[in-house]
Amino acid sequence: MAVTDRVKQILSWYSSENPGTLTNLVRLLNHGALAGTGKLVILPVDQGFEHGPVRSFAPNPESYDPDYFYQLAIDSGCNAYAAPLGSLEQPAAKFAGQVPLILKVNNSDTLAKVEPCSAITSSVEDALRIGACAIGYTIYPGSALRNQQYQDLREITLEAKRKGLVVVVWAYPRGTGMSKQGETAIDVTAYAATISAQLGAHIIKVKPPTAFIEQEEAKKVIEKYQIPVSTLTERIRYVVQSCFNGKRIVIFSGGEAKSTESVLGDIKELAAGGAFGSIMGRNAFQRSRTDALKLLADVMTVYKNA
Amino acid sequence: MAVTDRVKQILSWYSSENPGTLTNLVRLLNHGALAGTGKLVILPVDQGFEHGPVRSFAPNPESYDPDYFYQLAIDSGCNAYAAPLGSLEQPAAKFAGQVPLILKVNNSDTLAKVEPCSAITSSVEDALRIGACAIGYTIYPGSALRNQQYQDLREITLEAKRKGLVVVVWAYPRGTGMSKQGETAIDVTAYAATISAQLGAHIIKVKPPTAFIEQEEAKKVIEKYQIPVSTLTERIRYVVQSCFNGKRIVIFSGGEAKSTESVLGDIKELAAGGAFGSIMGRNAFQRSRTDALKLLADVMTVYKNA
Amino acid sequence: MAVTDRVKQILSWYSSENPGTLTNLVRLLNHGALAGTGKLVILPVDQGFEHGPVRSFAPNPESYDPDYFYQLAIDSGCNAYAAPLGSLEQPAAKFAGQVPLILKVNNSDTLAKVEPCSAITSSVEDALRIGACAIGYTIYPGSALRNQQYQDLREITLEAKRKGLVVVVWAYPRGTGMSKQGETAIDVTAYAATISAQLGAHIIKVKPPTAFIEQEEAKKVIEKYQIPVSTLTERIRYVVQSCFNGKRIVIFSGGEAKSTESVLGDIKELAAGGAFGSIMGRNAFQRSRTDALKLLADVMTVYKNA
Amino acid sequence: MAVTDRVKQILSWYSSENPGTLTNLVRLLNHGALAGTGKLVILPVDQGFEHGPVRSFAPNPESYDPDYFYQLAIDSGCNAYAAPLGSLEQPAAKFAGQVPLILKVNNSDTLAKVEPCSAITSSVEDALRIGACAIGYTIYPGSALRNQQYQDLREITLEAKRKGLVVVVWAYPRGTGMSKQGETAIDVTAYAATISAQLGAHIIKVKPPTAFIEQEEAKKVIEKYQIPVSTLTERIRYVVQSCFNGKRIVIFSGGEAKSTESVLGDIKELAAGGAFGSIMGRNAFQRSRTDALKLLADVMTVYKNA
Amino acid sequence: MAVTDRVKQILSWYSSENPGTLTNLVRLLNHGALAGTGKLVILPVDQGFEHGPVRSFAPNPESYDPDYFYQLAIDSGCNAYAAPLGSLEQPAAKFAGQVPLILKVNNSDTLAKVEPCSAITSSVEDALRIGACAIGYTIYPGSALRNQQYQDLREITLEAKRKGLVVVVWAYPRGTGMSKQGETAIDVTAYAATISAQLGAHIIKVKPPTAFIEQEEAKKVIEKYQIPVSTLTERIRYVVQSCFNGKRIVIFSGGEAKSTESVLGDIKELAAGGAFGSIMGRNAFQRSRTDALKLLADVMTVYKNA
Repeated sequence: MAVTDRVKQILSWYSSENPGTLTNLVRLLNHGALAGTGKLVILPVDQGFEHGPVRSFAPNPESYDPDYFYQLAIDSGCNAYAAPLGSLEQPAAKFAGQVPLILKVNNSDTLAKVEPCSAITSSVEDALRIGACAIGYTIYPGSALRNQQYQDLREITLEAKRKGLVVVVWAYPRGTGMSKQGETAIDVTAYAATISAQLGAHIIKVKPPTAFIEQEEAKKVIEKYQIPVSTLTERIRYVVQSCFNGKRIVIFSGGEAKSTESVLGDIKELAAGGAFGSIMGRNAFQRSRTDALKLLADVMTVYKNA
Repeated sequence: MAVTDRVKQILSWYSSENPGTLTNLVRLLNHGALAGTGKLVILPVDQGFEHGPVRSFAPNPESYDPDYFYQLAIDSGCNAYAAPLGSLEQPAAKFAGQVPLILKVNNSDTLAKVEPCSAITSSVEDALRIGACAIGYTIYPGSALRNQQYQDLREITLEAKRKGLVVVVWAYPRGTGMSKQGETAIDVTAYAATISAQLGAHIIKVKPPTAFIEQEEAKKVIEKYQIPVSTLTERIRYVVQSCFNGKRIVIFSGGEAKSTESVLGDIKELAAGGAFGSIMGRNAFQRSRTDALKLLADVMTVYKNA
Repeated sequence: MAVTDRVKQILSWYSSENPGTLTNLVRLLNHGALAGTGKLVILPVDQGFEHGPVRSFAPNPESYDPDYFYQLAIDSGCNAYAAPLGSLEQPAAKFAGQVPLILKVNNSDTLAKVEPCSAITSSVEDALRIGACAIGYTIYPGSALRNQQYQDLREITLEAKRKGLVVVVWAYPRGTGMSKQGETAIDVTAYAATISAQLGAHIIKVKPPTAFIEQEEAKKVIEKYQIPVSTLTERIRYVVQSCFNGKRIVIFSGGEAKSTESVLGDIKELAAGGAFGSIMGRNAFQRSRTDALKLLADVMTVYKNA
Repeated sequence: MAVTDRVKQILSWYSSENPGTLTNLVRLLNHGALAGTGKLVILPVDQGFEHGPVRSFAPNPESYDPDYFYQLAIDSGCNAYAAPLGSLEQPAAKFAGQVPLILKVNNSDTLAKVEPCSAITSSVEDALRIGACAIGYTIYPGSALRNQQYQDLREITLEAKRKGLVVVVWAYPRGTGMSKQGETAIDVTAYAATISAQLGAHIIKVKPPTAFIEQEEAKKVIEKYQIPVSTLTERIRYVVQSCFNGKRIVIFSGGEAKSTESVLGDIKELAAGGAFGSIMGRNAFQRSRTDALKLLADVMTVYKNA
Repeated sequence: MAVTDRVKQILSWYSSENPGTLTNLVRLLNHGALAGTGKLVILPVDQGFEHGPVRSFAPNPESYDPDYFYQLAIDSGCNAYAAPLGSLEQPAAKFAGQVPLILKVNNSDTLAKVEPCSAITSSVEDALRIGACAIGYTIYPGSALRNQQYQDLREITLEAKRKGLVVVVWAYPRGTGMSKQGETAIDVTAYAATISAQLGAHIIKVKPPTAFIEQEEAKKVIEKYQIPVSTLTERIRYVVQSCFNGKRIVIFSGGEAKSTESVLGDIKELAAGGAFGSIMGRNAFQRSRTDALKLLADVMTVYKNA
């Protein structure tokens, strides 16, 4: 399809990247129900690795099958499907070319209780081999091991950019550096998104932040300058602004599975705040296929009308 | 767009390739006016390098500008645009994601009169950097230097396949090993196409063969088994059969610019013989843009109805 | 299946090779109708590349399809199927694990009339990628370019052995260094086989030699010591002796397609002379499938009873 | 512009460096309002990464946009603009060649409370790719992890010098090895600057030291030899002397945003003490653009008249 | 200095390059008397290597000293100085940062009379080490060895672009493929310039072409389309058009030393035809310094007023 003015505007923010990376950005932005709008809804499934199969797939046993996610992403018109190597690779030949792929190159399990740090579980070479448009990488700002994560990301990013791939960073603040509540605090979320942009991410994924403020110094500034962070819409706007004044694609996760009403309520606020889209895992695949398709369609409609 | 049954059938012939290569095959097969039909019309422009600018672009001065070919390929709905590094790279950022690219990684000029052998002028790394789906490579079976060409191709092919790219081989028999007439002989053309397939090509491009037979031994066999090669349609059928019994995509060039009627007449025979498509350079870009768009549309219609 | 005493004896001659290469030798020796006998019948198909499709496949049009050779090798109980990259790779995923593969890594076409030298058309890396047990390589002793061929073989052999593959050398004397008749002379054939062994080949393939003697010095010695070379059986015995006194597997080709009777007559002499087996291309695949299966079964019976 | 005698004198201290590094030193010294004076005012913006977006950019919301810093550095006539990869890269193509860049290759966030150690977040390769003249690196003398930092710096420095880049070291004493007050103690500051010079830094950046003395042994010596450290000017002189007797460029930071009067008062003392310049982040960009331009102009005037 | 609108327009043609290369392009375009005009006058001195010292430097003995060329390039306000490694490196530290450098990475001597092919005499690594902005490379289209030259250039270009350097190609048609007169024929010159652009050159340097036409096929086309090539101005316009319709910087050499009047007459025609500038070696340095400065100033004035 043609490249819309909005997509061209987004590409103009990435003018330091080579044409290969721009091409893969277009592939993500020009696929599915939101093609051309500059908005993205992405289906991510790393829960098998991150939470184990019981917690992840038991609510919807069809989802044990890797085909299920490909088919769901294709049929729902998601812009892309993101997963660890195994899930992507197993049916990759079968679904080749039907939906843009994001290879999640690091992953963390929950069998060891240690300072958060994902293992690097696949590579740029794997991404090319299976035909992915992008690599995905999780950082845990707040972890005592964050530096190793940033350094590994730097190397992967350099290679990915040279090979024309897009770099998507999942920024999940956690670790000994912060309180549990702080992990989704507005100041911390905006900070984590900024770090991702500084590390060279093309697309940044964070959780929708709460109004809680973790850092004392941030609190003072927010109060002094009366930065509006009381509604989710305001907070989303602030996070997007924190990423090069909106010149990076910032998308938001849905978090734990919850009611349709609640999900759509959140999405409306995200869209109103200027979010570039959503990445919906459990809320999509832990519903029945019919319900998931309905929900994703509704979510896409919200973004299309934003 | 969805992958049609015909495209799935074609992909089934490439089941030894990795999903990245399959993905790029789909990108070629699912783009443009012939998307999903399993047919391809490709715009190739290496004449600037191969014949010099005067002979190539003077007939249509707009074509001096690299933008022109991108726009022509996009507007006409070609499946892909193929060219040497310089032409592809100059406006690659501007047109990122709008048409699949084939990077022609070797090229030959006509300033030195030597045994035919192209220079390697770009690389798999370049292809990834500018966002190409495929690399293109010319071999000259019949040249005393053919072995070097085959060996270089082998290395490039191995890397291209590892990185998920498609390999397109242009097979042009010529050199001290054969007569001028033999360069387009049916036996030689089929032989060159077979060599390309054996070397691992995913897509093979040859010239439409004449009824002339170059090799005495081939002549005897063709006569003994009464292989029908008197019409172009029959010869095309034979060339396609020679490529793994039709399990490789074989496309045909148009050659020198000629009358519209003559071009379309040829295309009808190609299509009737089972050609997977055409690669049309001079016949496209040495016409005015309006005429080129009209001709390409007519050519695509022939293939669509085949 | 278990490893027989005869196979163990053969393996004992290769005790300097690493276990990976021994394992692949066992795969070749323990497959098919001759499994465990220490004898081999191999189906080789490089004629598409070497002679062109018309001469190779027209006599049996089913053979245009790469599936055909796999199926013939499997159904006839051949120990292995040998071919260039393209033919092996196209249906490799479909037939994975059903018959041992020998990847012919160099090949020569007959479109250029130059000093004989094959192009390297695939690699050890390719062999591993498609699951082959062995690589095959042709040398042309007598060619002015033989040294380049020996040097390339040396590098490929080193890599193949390091990666645990078997090295099969096709030794075809020809070139400016000898007369046409000399190409199959007994002294030349034995000499070429010795060169192959010296270059590190695990399996050596030559043509059944004639009683002609090419080199004057060889003639004198053969006469002086009354080496018996008047029957094919005697000549085979001499060639096998020339390869480390029989401690290398030496197999023989059939040459051009000919009558069943003639083929079987030759095979009986080969077997009587101690040949380790035959490599039968055109005599197998230029017959109808039914005839080919019958012939291959008869050939195997001869070797089984030898 | 021509190279002044003062710049030539400075270059003479770096005669062991290769011409590429000298060239980039000239690019820094010959750019902007202070070009040719041997003085430097640099705009550094790593606060987004180091302190988070709220604390950094909320005081001047225009500064969320990476364009803002480039434009401020250009319009104010700063010698260079220093930042982490993301901020530098995003608009790098747009501002190419308009202001010398220093790529800050390591960075530390304040979300984890651990022993101070920055993560390496970009590379010499990145610096070349985006057209930077220099790389910047922070060390934390006093940190239990300082050795790792020194070792990483050593490797980066070796590569940077080989590729003709300038190495700027930010030396911030902190960590379990010292008191809070000691971080800016005169003895510690001079010591940290010396370590930087010893590690091969071309330009050293420290904080203006206080009169506090951290180490007992240092105190004794300062008293014994009556080293004057009571005024800021004296302390600056001492730090500069500590860096190869003034044969390394030493510049000073401004620290937290404060009043214009206070900033200029400090700068006068710095200039009087022989500082080669200032690196002004928050005091520049947390003012309005108009105020920032005015302040930077005043600061440059002080240095020009020094 | 600021980047003018004209320079910005030129940069827009290179949007697929990374910011490092754009930065070095600006360094070339923003230096010297023609800074900001989009025009370039470059001093090249490879005659010592190419023609030997006697022929090169005897007319002006001061020019034996490598300092001489640096000083001439600086004092005359040339945009850059181009030379082989030795000349550039010897005084590089002394003149660091005073004039942009182009490292000529291949060179040919005239001691052996063989098919023209330059030796690669320095590297991208050398260019970075001595602080050059660009590498220069000569190709000889028409040489039987041209393919090797193109292939070497491809590798050097890929590395240069990755490291942020500019690639300047000197295209000198010569060799067994063409007549002596053909070396500067209009068709051949335009062809050689096109090849350079296709190979990825950022700046292309050819000789001013004559009205002679070498290739019969080109002659027919030039006549058929009545392409005006009778005046130098017309021919320059045609060569510039042949380089991506003017979207590549094309500069012209002066050739052998001749009268001032003759040089300036040529330059006026070059400028009128849209040349981006001149590269003047012998006409500059084989005059006395005073005369050379005068001539270069006059040449620059012509370009400034064009």
